[in-house]
Amino acid sequence: MSSSYGENLRLTVFGQSHSPAIGVTVEGLPAGEPIDLEELQRFLERRAPGRSAWATTRKEPDAPEFLSGLKENVTCGAPLTAIIRNTNTRSGDYAAFADIPRPGHADYTARVKYFGAEDRAGGGHFSGRLTAPLCIAGGICLQLLRREGIEIISRIAAIGGVEDRGELLASTAEKDFPTVDKAAGEAMQAEIAKARAEGDSVGGVVECAVLGLPAGLGDPMFGGMENRIAAIVFGIPAVKGLEFGAGFAAAALRGSENNDPYILKNGQVITATNHSGGILGGITSGMPLVFRAAFKPTPSIAKEQDSVDLKTMSPAKLCVGGRHDPCIVPRAVPVVEAAAAVAVYDALLARKREMRIQAWN
Amino acid sequence: MSSSYGENLRLTVFGQSHSPAIGVTVEGLPAGEPIDLEELQRFLERRAPGRSAWATTRKEPDAPEFLSGLKENVTCGAPLTAIIRNTNTRSGDYAAFADIPRPGHADYTARVKYFGAEDRAGGGHFSGRLTAPLCIAGGICLQLLRREGIEIISRIAAIGGVEDRGELLASTAEKDFPTVDKAAGEAMQAEIAKARAEGDSVGGVVECAVLGLPAGLGDPMFGGMENRIAAIVFGIPAVKGLEFGAGFAAAALRGSENNDPYILKNGQVITATNHSGGILGGITSGMPLVFRAAFKPTPSIAKEQDSVDLKTMSPAKLCVGGRHDPCIVPRAVPVVEAAAAVAVYDALLARKREMRIQAWN
Amino acid sequence: MSSSYGENLRLTVFGQSHSPAIGVTVEGLPAGEPIDLEELQRFLERRAPGRSAWATTRKEPDAPEFLSGLKENVTCGAPLTAIIRNTNTRSGDYAAFADIPRPGHADYTARVKYFGAEDRAGGGHFSGRLTAPLCIAGGICLQLLRREGIEIISRIAAIGGVEDRGELLASTAEKDFPTVDKAAGEAMQAEIAKARAEGDSVGGVVECAVLGLPAGLGDPMFGGMENRIAAIVFGIPAVKGLEFGAGFAAAALRGSENNDPYILKNGQVITATNHSGGILGGITSGMPLVFRAAFKPTPSIAKEQDSVDLKTMSPAKLCVGGRHDPCIVPRAVPVVEAAAAVAVYDALLARKREMRIQAWN
Amino acid sequence: MSSSYGENLRLTVFGQSHSPAIGVTVEGLPAGEPIDLEELQRFLERRAPGRSAWATTRKEPDAPEFLSGLKENVTCGAPLTAIIRNTNTRSGDYAAFADIPRPGHADYTARVKYFGAEDRAGGGHFSGRLTAPLCIAGGICLQLLRREGIEIISRIAAIGGVEDRGELLASTAEKDFPTVDKAAGEAMQAEIAKARAEGDSVGGVVECAVLGLPAGLGDPMFGGMENRIAAIVFGIPAVKGLEFGAGFAAAALRGSENNDPYILKNGQVITATNHSGGILGGITSGMPLVFRAAFKPTPSIAKEQDSVDLKTMSPAKLCVGGRHDPCIVPRAVPVVEAAAAVAVYDALLARKREMRIQAWN
Repeated sequence: MSSSYGENLRLTVFGQSHSPAIGVTVEGLPAGEPIDLEELQRFLERRAPGRSAWATTRKEPDAPEFLSGLKENVTCGAPLTAIIRNTNTRSGDYAAFADIPRPGHADYTARVKYFGAEDRAGGGHFSGRLTAPLCIAGGICLQLLRREGIEIISRIAAIGGVEDRGELLASTAEKDFPTVDKAAGEAMQAEIAKARAEGDSVGGVVECAVLGLPAGLGDPMFGGMENRIAAIVFGIPAVKGLEFGAGFAAAALRGSENNDPYILKNGQVITATNHSGGILGGITSGMPLVFRAAFKPTPSIAKEQDSVDLKTMSPAKLCVGGRHDPCIVPRAVPVVEAAAAVAVYDALLARKREMRIQAWN
Repeated sequence: MSSSYGENLRLTVFGQSHSPAIGVTVEGLPAGEPIDLEELQRFLERRAPGRSAWATTRKEPDAPEFLSGLKENVTCGAPLTAIIRNTNTRSGDYAAFADIPRPGHADYTARVKYFGAEDRAGGGHFSGRLTAPLCIAGGICLQLLRREGIEIISRIAAIGGVEDRGELLASTAEKDFPTVDKAAGEAMQAEIAKARAEGDSVGGVVECAVLGLPAGLGDPMFGGMENRIAAIVFGIPAVKGLEFGAGFAAAALRGSENNDPYILKNGQVITATNHSGGILGGITSGMPLVFRAAFKPTPSIAKEQDSVDLKTMSPAKLCVGGRHDPCIVPRAVPVVEAAAAVAVYDALLARKREMRIQAWN
Repeated sequence: MSSSYGENLRLTVFGQSHSPAIGVTVEGLPAGEPIDLEELQRFLERRAPGRSAWATTRKEPDAPEFLSGLKENVTCGAPLTAIIRNTNTRSGDYAAFADIPRPGHADYTARVKYFGAEDRAGGGHFSGRLTAPLCIAGGICLQLLRREGIEIISRIAAIGGVEDRGELLASTAEKDFPTVDKAAGEAMQAEIAKARAEGDSVGGVVECAVLGLPAGLGDPMFGGMENRIAAIVFGIPAVKGLEFGAGFAAAALRGSENNDPYILKNGQVITATNHSGGILGGITSGMPLVFRAAFKPTPSIAKEQDSVDLKTMSPAKLCVGGRHDPCIVPRAVPVVEAAAAVAVYDALLARKREMRIQAWN
Repeated sequence: MSSSYGENLRLTVFGQSHSPAIGVTVEGLPAGEPIDLEELQRFLERRAPGRSAWATTRKEPDAPEFLSGLKENVTCGAPLTAIIRNTNTRSGDYAAFADIPRPGHADYTARVKYFGAEDRAGGGHFSGRLTAPLCIAGGICLQLLRREGIEIISRIAAIGGVEDRGELLASTAEKDFPTVDKAAGEAMQAEIAKARAEGDSVGGVVECAVLGLPAGLGDPMFGGMENRIAAIVFGIPAVKGLEFGAGFAAAALRGSENNDPYILKNGQVITATNHSGGILGGITSGMPLVFRAAFKPTPSIAKEQDSVDLKTMSPAKLCVGGRHDPCIVPRAVPVVEAAAAVAVYDALLARKREMRIQAWN
């Protein structure tokens, strides 16, 4: 189903921007795993709105309530459900567009799909706010992965035309602005400020790396790590492109340039380069799994735009008011990590099926 | 499972490069649909090897035998299975690499995953040859889609650094080399010839457009058209990147540039531009659905490469002999169409569940 | 996943007996369908505890709160989530059995499965209380089915050795005790009272019929209506047997007795008898779909039983106190209807994929 | 999809009675497992027709050809596909009923479902012949289970009204007629012979036990062992009832009679009785998993029956000629074992996801 993801770990996201609550159910978590709720809260705060100059001023704590699946903060084997109440909703902001679809949003397509019965307030189930429950699930997976020696790090690789410099080797989570190069980060912030000042918005690219992965995860064909990650990352609103390793750049390379030679290092087989992004034949090689996701600019802009009044079927103009991010990319960084964590942990559970079990009891 | 795709139409691809046969089972095809086997054969021939200067000289007819699911060439509601016998296999070509994984191939990752039990001959289940059964399923879906007024067209958008010119508006299937601009196509062929002459290979980009789609197909979140298409397209060997509409370029745009304004045309709501690639909130807008897939250069190259002998755990050199495509992209064009056809037809069947049925009998 | 059911309509049940809440998420509901919440509440009350002499005295209102999926009580296309808070929990009742598994319960098997991390209080996720969220989902499906002309009725067919008399032709939902024959019902109640007086419990059989079904629902093989209904009905705690139409009795019949001859009635093809229970080859025939589910006696009994102390690994005795139903069957009747409704509605959505759509927009 | 089963091991059955071939694809088999093809062949022969007085005289070898998934008779990790050619087809036998549906068969329901496009010859995809591919998959699973110390045994528990005597403790596979009690078996054979002589057929019950199962397999709710087994066993043609442990008899018992007390034996926790059939809360207890499946009498009988001519919509008589089993039950015994093997092995793979893995490489 469309709001669910995963074969072995399965999450289902529910809620609309202005429904009583949003939330997530996660099935398939192993029993007996303690969840550090404070650490999870810190992770959620990286995504939460209202923290900075470049984000929406809608301020909500994003504090999940756990309804099931935990027993004294330890997973008990039953499905885990966590919800976040929607408290700070201003539906009035959206009444103006009831019949005038906002360009770049799902207003029009949702209306056609649901025959006009969709919940339009705040973007309904299409709202970026629904990435909060994804981060709850992903934040839990990040903790489980760490226990297996696996880390997920990411950075803003580009905003507008400005690119980050240097290689992604360590977490940027503690930084005010998650780039490797500080100067590049400042130029990106200037780009965002400029877009905001002009009543406009700007897009960007997030790069993510999974470190410490064992070789042998993922499957051939449609179960490849690329397929698994794509199937969840394209579920993050505004993602319109995805590439692994050298990605689109590989299309311009020769095989002799793009192939990663095998070498030995400390008795381990590794590759001298990592153009494959750590995936060959859909299966992890043991090298860092690296991907980049392209985010389109936030469609909500103050500038006047052309649209159509669907009631009168006549041309119309609209300016999108309300509280919006001029650039969603900084807040999207932990969401990408969360998505990657879910996909990788699901693949790790799948891999367990292939391992030999010494004793069943 | 990893060799299966689809929720409503479900295909399962089986076979190894050198097993007795390869094939596909398709469940969920509507009953009573005639399949034009000659048209299907012409479609398969666009992918088949041995046709041109830029393809492998391994020559096999790729003529499917239908084992089930048809009654006098009409679908009967039961699962359809078609197989292609593997006749022209030269396993000897591969014996040399038994313990030396070829860079850029799945040799090493498959060996780890399957604990050494994998079928290495010809790439086994990872072989590009497995795209033939995908094309059988896709070729059937293309026929079914056409009956709903939906066409899928594609072209080579780039090879090496050479880009095609002009917009993709019509099928290139009848062309010798599937580009919009003939001169660009010739430059690409020169690029391929050069790579071949140097014992090397080269990558490229395929662009695909789905025309005539109704608005309202696809779902929010993980059921979006991007997710659905990505989950199958990344199953084509060598695909390392995927973008929809403006894609990665959108990341550098302003919202005011990237948003597609709604306008009225002949009483229909359309968008003046199509940076979204016909998808908003995961759901089709009625505009052409446009995506591009990046293919890495074929990893099989004649040039000497560094690797490791996994038996002796010592450095090794290898040159990949055998019959290989210096550029897989021209043969990948119909494969991309096939993948798109399966994903779109599956989404169309999903859409049926949402439509009102007048009478059940 | 184990707490989820359905392909086209997908429900996920979450919660433990003593967790903050229990609930259900339903994906795939058609948009634009009004849900009559009062009617739903009346349906839930048929299952709710504390209503009668034969049920547990744990009294909770079972009033669902809808967190998502509705817009002014109309489905909006997004996943619907409803929860019921757990307020009246007395965990102390269960502390005594922390290490002594109750015979007939899941205590021991859950402990092995979850390595001791399971939530034991009140039976955790295994509690019969989890049938309340199933009834929310089923109650909604019942309303949707009624709009298609489909009704689901049921009755207690047997309790202890006492069998109901007469044929199930109309709803028993309004009756104090849901049997066709009043005298049989009174004998069953006497049987329950006797078991309760002896600190014991008793099992029974629920019969269910789906009326007004179109022919053509369901699929061959593993998608048969029997398979679909079994896959959900065996998820109701205590169900240990299931049969369709003549069921086990058919095993003792001749073909000439069991076959249902086709006849014409008012220009419609029907069968003169209905030993098949309205299903042939897994597919509905248009006759009433009839099945019976066998419930074992409630394992919670006041009588002293033998068990084992898992901590000391020594024999132990236990008496199960707390508030328990001496017979779960009366309260199980609407649960069986709910399960049938979900399975049938899911099959109805599947059938839509096979129907011809006149226009997509 | 309807012809597929399993989450971790997934099999897809294809073929029609008179299509070029029938077969099965199995995904998810562990790599590196040798398959004893001779042992598999002996297993298939227990199901094969033409062996005895009580079976159809249609004689086909049921010798599978393996198209993929094996490398020198060892699983290689890729999907395994095996086919059986249909050689001995006499479609003429069926032409007579083109428009007169046979009572008790899927003729009418298939016609409605597939709008008349179904393959009617020999029952098409609904034919009992399709249990041969199920037996290929099941026979392989039986070999894999044996390596884990798990055995599956079964017997004919009843035919017509005649019941077997004694407890099912050991395999009956080597017997001419698979009952525990020889005299009971002879009485059953007499029952079958009598039915055949009268141009009639007779039903029966198969009992199956899974021995050596570890505790902890299966899941709560819809993932219970009962649900899993039911979802496949009801896919065997003619099965109309299924019960676990005491099953329907439990409905007439008191809790104090039906509960299985825990005791210690050789330091292991077991139950003194096994009314639960080895399943509590959907999860295995370590006791034998026991179930019984009720088979209706073969609907194909020589006796004249009432039906309807669907072309003229008028009453019609028909006698079913051709070669049919007067009782399908003896040949169904290995099919039930095969179905159980697939369900149990799938649950075993699911259980692996919950076990701790010492090292990933």
